[in-house]
Amino acid sequence: MQREWLSNDLCSVAGTLEILGERWTMLVLREAFLGTRRFDDFHRNIGCARNILSERLQKLVANGVLERRKYSDRPPRFEYRLTAKGIDLWPAIIALMQWGDRYVAGERGPAIVLEHKACEHESTPHLVCSHCGERVNARAMRAHPGPGALIESA
Amino acid sequence: MQREWLSNDLCSVAGTLEILGERWTMLVLREAFLGTRRFDDFHRNIGCARNILSERLQKLVANGVLERRKYSDRPPRFEYRLTAKGIDLWPAIIALMQWGDRYVAGERGPAIVLEHKACEHESTPHLVCSHCGERVNARAMRAHPGPGALIESA
Repeated sequence: MQREWLSNDLCSVAGTLEILGERWTMLVLREAFLGTRRFDDFHRNIGCARNILSERLQKLVANGVLERRKYSDRPPRFEYRLTAKGIDLWPAIIALMQWGDRYVAGERGPAIVLEHKACEHESTPHLVCSHCGERVNARAMRAHPGPGALIESA
Repeated sequence: MQREWLSNDLCSVAGTLEILGERWTMLVLREAFLGTRRFDDFHRNIGCARNILSERLQKLVANGVLERRKYSDRPPRFEYRLTAKGIDLWPAIIALMQWGDRYVAGERGPAIVLEHKACEHESTPHLVCSHCGERVNARAMRAHPGPGALIESA
């Protein structure tokens, strides 16, 4: 069955993966969310080659996910910080982490646990419907062509 | 600042990206969530080379994310269906889609909109705290070393 209304050009998953669709990029984001800002710390904590890291950081800056800020004049030194656009990637990182906690970490348990600052409890956030607030999963939802689809709601 | 308690070996994001850290794999999952099951339909809807698609499908089957089922005996034909483990990747796909809807799709709007079957309303699911139910984002949470970390809660 061919689908006529969705092409990769229009798909937000495909568009996002143009920016993020690669292991090292996502690990740079993990680090950024854990508070890492400096090149040498990214390098040490991720363990990828310096040229790869440099290329990934540049791409994230070019796409407005990270911003590069000078934090020292002599010598000139820069750090990388998440922009608002970058911070909005948090649900994606959390979803990948939770899946990994369940299916990859196995018996050793998660390496990272989250605390909700407001309620001070350990928290494993989950998705709820924006309309009714009920917890949702794949089976609870139906996908329709949206305004950006090739053919509107068939 | 070096972090002592988290290595890529222990990190669930890194572990997950060993399986998924690549554009085509994630688009195969997008298709699977949209109901695609047959090789030729994956191929047509994703638009990647057949050998790449074949390799990605095999990897997802080997990792238990998809299962390969015979649906015809003569000639023998197979389809690919999400397992329970695969279905649990839905929050990650949704998070990537929502981010793309906001920052990649731009004015044309989302190609896919979701309907919550139970309440019959259009829905853009969001994350809430598993303890108190309050809506959460990156700033609302604090990360701690978990049981699977190298050094427990320092």
